[in-house]
Amino acid sequence: MSVVVQKYGGTSVGDVERIKNVANRIIRRKEAGNELVVVVSAMGKSTDELMQMAHSITDTPKVRELDMLLATGEQVSISMLSMALQSKGCDAISFTGAQIGMRTIGKHGKSRILDIDTKRIQSALDEGKVVIVAGFQGVNENDDITTLGRGGSDTSAVALAAALGCPCEIYTDVDGIYGIDPRRYPDARKLSSVSCDEMLEMASLGAGVMHARAIELGSKYGIEIRVASSMDEIPGTAIKKDMPDSERPVTGLAVDEDESIVTLNGVPYTTQTTARLFSAVAAEGINIDMISQTPQREGTVNLSFSAPTAEIPDLREVLSRYREEFPYKNSHIDENIVKLSVVGSGMRNQSGVALQFFRNFREAKIPVLMITTSDIRISCVIPKEDADKAVELVSRSFGL
Amino acid sequence: MSVVVQKYGGTSVGDVERIKNVANRIIRRKEAGNELVVVVSAMGKSTDELMQMAHSITDTPKVRELDMLLATGEQVSISMLSMALQSKGCDAISFTGAQIGMRTIGKHGKSRILDIDTKRIQSALDEGKVVIVAGFQGVNENDDITTLGRGGSDTSAVALAAALGCPCEIYTDVDGIYGIDPRRYPDARKLSSVSCDEMLEMASLGAGVMHARAIELGSKYGIEIRVASSMDEIPGTAIKKDMPDSERPVTGLAVDEDESIVTLNGVPYTTQTTARLFSAVAAEGINIDMISQTPQREGTVNLSFSAPTAEIPDLREVLSRYREEFPYKNSHIDENIVKLSVVGSGMRNQSGVALQFFRNFREAKIPVLMITTSDIRISCVIPKEDADKAVELVSRSFGL
Repeated sequence: MSVVVQKYGGTSVGDVERIKNVANRIIRRKEAGNELVVVVSAMGKSTDELMQMAHSITDTPKVRELDMLLATGEQVSISMLSMALQSKGCDAISFTGAQIGMRTIGKHGKSRILDIDTKRIQSALDEGKVVIVAGFQGVNENDDITTLGRGGSDTSAVALAAALGCPCEIYTDVDGIYGIDPRRYPDARKLSSVSCDEMLEMASLGAGVMHARAIELGSKYGIEIRVASSMDEIPGTAIKKDMPDSERPVTGLAVDEDESIVTLNGVPYTTQTTARLFSAVAAEGINIDMISQTPQREGTVNLSFSAPTAEIPDLREVLSRYREEFPYKNSHIDENIVKLSVVGSGMRNQSGVALQFFRNFREAKIPVLMITTSDIRISCVIPKEDADKAVELVSRSFGL
Repeated sequence: MSVVVQKYGGTSVGDVERIKNVANRIIRRKEAGNELVVVVSAMGKSTDELMQMAHSITDTPKVRELDMLLATGEQVSISMLSMALQSKGCDAISFTGAQIGMRTIGKHGKSRILDIDTKRIQSALDEGKVVIVAGFQGVNENDDITTLGRGGSDTSAVALAAALGCPCEIYTDVDGIYGIDPRRYPDARKLSSVSCDEMLEMASLGAGVMHARAIELGSKYGIEIRVASSMDEIPGTAIKKDMPDSERPVTGLAVDEDESIVTLNGVPYTTQTTARLFSAVAAEGINIDMISQTPQREGTVNLSFSAPTAEIPDLREVLSRYREEFPYKNSHIDENIVKLSVVGSGMRNQSGVALQFFRNFREAKIPVLMITTSDIRISCVIPKEDADKAVELVSRSFGL
C-alpha cells in the first residue's frame, strides 16, 4: 500500500463538525487503499488565542516558554482528530513532534527541521493505523519543545513526506493555487500545476498559500506536492519541481499593499554611504525590499527604497538617529503606493513579457515609480489609486 | 539552600491575575532562601473544558487520546507561570511530565508514578532557576502521555518531594484541613496537624482536600506535607506520618449525601448467594460501600448495602438481570439518607468514643439505619432530614 502525507490547516479542523468531516475524508482515502500520515495545525484561531494569553502575562514572553504554550494547540487538534477517527471505527494514533523525534535546530519560534525518526510512524502504519502528527512543532537538542514559525505545519508535512519518500497533499480553505488572489478577484483562474520556483517567488511576495520553507524543502527532495480544498473533492493544484517552463508567460500576479517608498534626495555619493545606512536599518530588523538610486549633479544621488509600511516609524527613527553620518538634502515617504508583481517560469524563454506587462501601464497612463526583476518575476510600484485598474489590465493581458 | 516542592491547584492559577499572584509568592519564597520546584494543575476549569471537547467528538473517547488532550491543560499553565516569573526578573523553566522523565505504569487516565529522573530538575536548580513542572501527567513505557486521574497533581508533587528528598507544600483554595467542610459549616475549626491515617480515611469519605494516593505516597516515604491557602500567608495544616495518636478523640467529620441504601428482604441463605451478587455488581463498576446482613426465619436473610445514588439505575438493572440466580422476596431503595462519619486516630486509645458519638443520635431521637467502623473511623447512615441536626450535635459534642 502506498503512503501519503496529508496536511489539514487550522480552518479545516476549526470546529468539531469540520474535524468529523476531515475524519470522513481520511477514512474514504484509507478505504481507497492508501496508508495515511496526517499532519494537522491547531484548531481555527487557537494559536492566536494562545499568543494573546502569553501577551496577557507579558509583552515580551521568552521564546522557549512561548513555544511550550503554542505547541499545545496542535496537541489538542491531533487528539481530537484521532478520537473522531476512532469513534468512526478507524484505528488511529496521534503523536506530538517530540514523540516522532521531529528534531529541530535554530531559534525557538522559527526552528528548522533537522531530522525525523520515522520508526514509530512506520510501526503504527504497519499495524494498520492512521497516524496523526502535530504540525508546527519539534524538539531541539535539549528536548525542549520548539515551533517552526507561522505556516510551519506545511513544512512538517513536506518534511515527513521527504522522510517517508511519499507524496504530500496540503488541504486548506482554498481549492488550489490561483494566478490572482480569488478572495479579491472572483474571476481568478485556478492553476492545474505550478513550478516550485514560481511558488517560491509568489510566497516571497506574500501571495503564497504555502510556507516558503515547505516549498524549498519540496523542491530540494523532489516531493510531489498538491494543494487542494479540504471542503470538496476537486483536484487542486500540483506543485512540481521539474516542470517544463510554461507555455504561459505569466503564472501569477500579486499585489502588495503594505509597502511604502522612502526617497532621500541629495545624498552625498561615496561608496560607503548607502551600505552604512542599510546596515543600520538591517540591525533594526527592518526589511528593505526594492532599492533604486539615480545620480544627480554635484556628486549626490537620489535614493529610493521600499519597506513595509508597518516599519516606517522605526525607519524614520533610524534615519534621524543617523542623520549626521548619513546626510541628505530632503526626504519624502509615500505610503499611497502598491507593489504589483507578475511571476512565471515562462519568462525565462519568452521574450517580450516585460513589454507586454508595461504596455498596460503606458496605455492606461499609470505612472510606474520603481521596477525590479528576477529571471521569473517583474515587480513595479504604482500609485495605490491605480491598483485595481492595473490588476484588471495586467490579468486580462496575460489571461489570468 | 534547601529545596521545597510547592503545588498550586487549578483555582490558584485560574486566571492571569492569580498566576501573577502565585509568581509573587514564589519569588518571595526564593528570596527567603529556598530552591523551588513548583507543580501546577491546569488553569481553573480547563480540564473540564477539555473533557467536554472530547465528549463533543464521542461519548467514549479512547483513553490514550484523552490523556493526550488533557495533558495540554498543565502544559498551558506551566508555560504561563514560567513567563510570569521571567517577566518579574526571576529565572524559571517549565517542564512537561515527559521532559522530567515522570515514568508511569498502569492504565491511561489513572496511571501511577513509577519513577522520576531528577537530573534535569537538579541541573536547572543548580543554575538558580525556579523549576515549574506540569502536574497530573507522565509518560509510560511507550513514551505515550499518561495522566494520573483527578487530583493527580497532588501525587505529582509528593512524588517529586520523595524523589528530591524534600518537604512538600500543597497550596489550594482552602487555608488548611478542617474537621468539617468549612464551605458548609462556617464555624468549622482548622486543624494545625493531622496524621496520614486520618487524612486517608477522610479522603476515602470524599472529605479530603487531597488526592488519596498523594497521602499514601507521603506516608510511604515519610514526606512532610503542608496544606495551605494560595491566597494568604496563614500556615495551614501539617500532614504527618508519625504523629502521636491525638488527645482529641475525633479529628474530622464527613457527610456523604450521595449514597442510597438498597435493602433486599427474604434472600435465601446459601454461602454463595451474596458473593455472586456482589461480583456481578462489581463487574459493572458499581462501588458498594457499607454492607449489613441480618438473619431471618426460614433460612433467609435481609441484606442491606449502600451505593452511590448515581449508580442506582445500573444497580436496578443488575438486580433484575440476576433475579433468577439471586432471588429475593422484595426490595426497597432509600435515597433519602446520608452517611455521617467521624475520623480520629485518638479512637485507637480512647474508649467511649462510639458511646459519645451515638448518644447524640439517641438524645435527638435520630434513627441510625446502618453502622460500620474501622479502627479510626465510625460511620452511620441516618435519614437525610436529620443530617443538619446530627452534624451540629456531633461536631459540638467533639468540639470540631
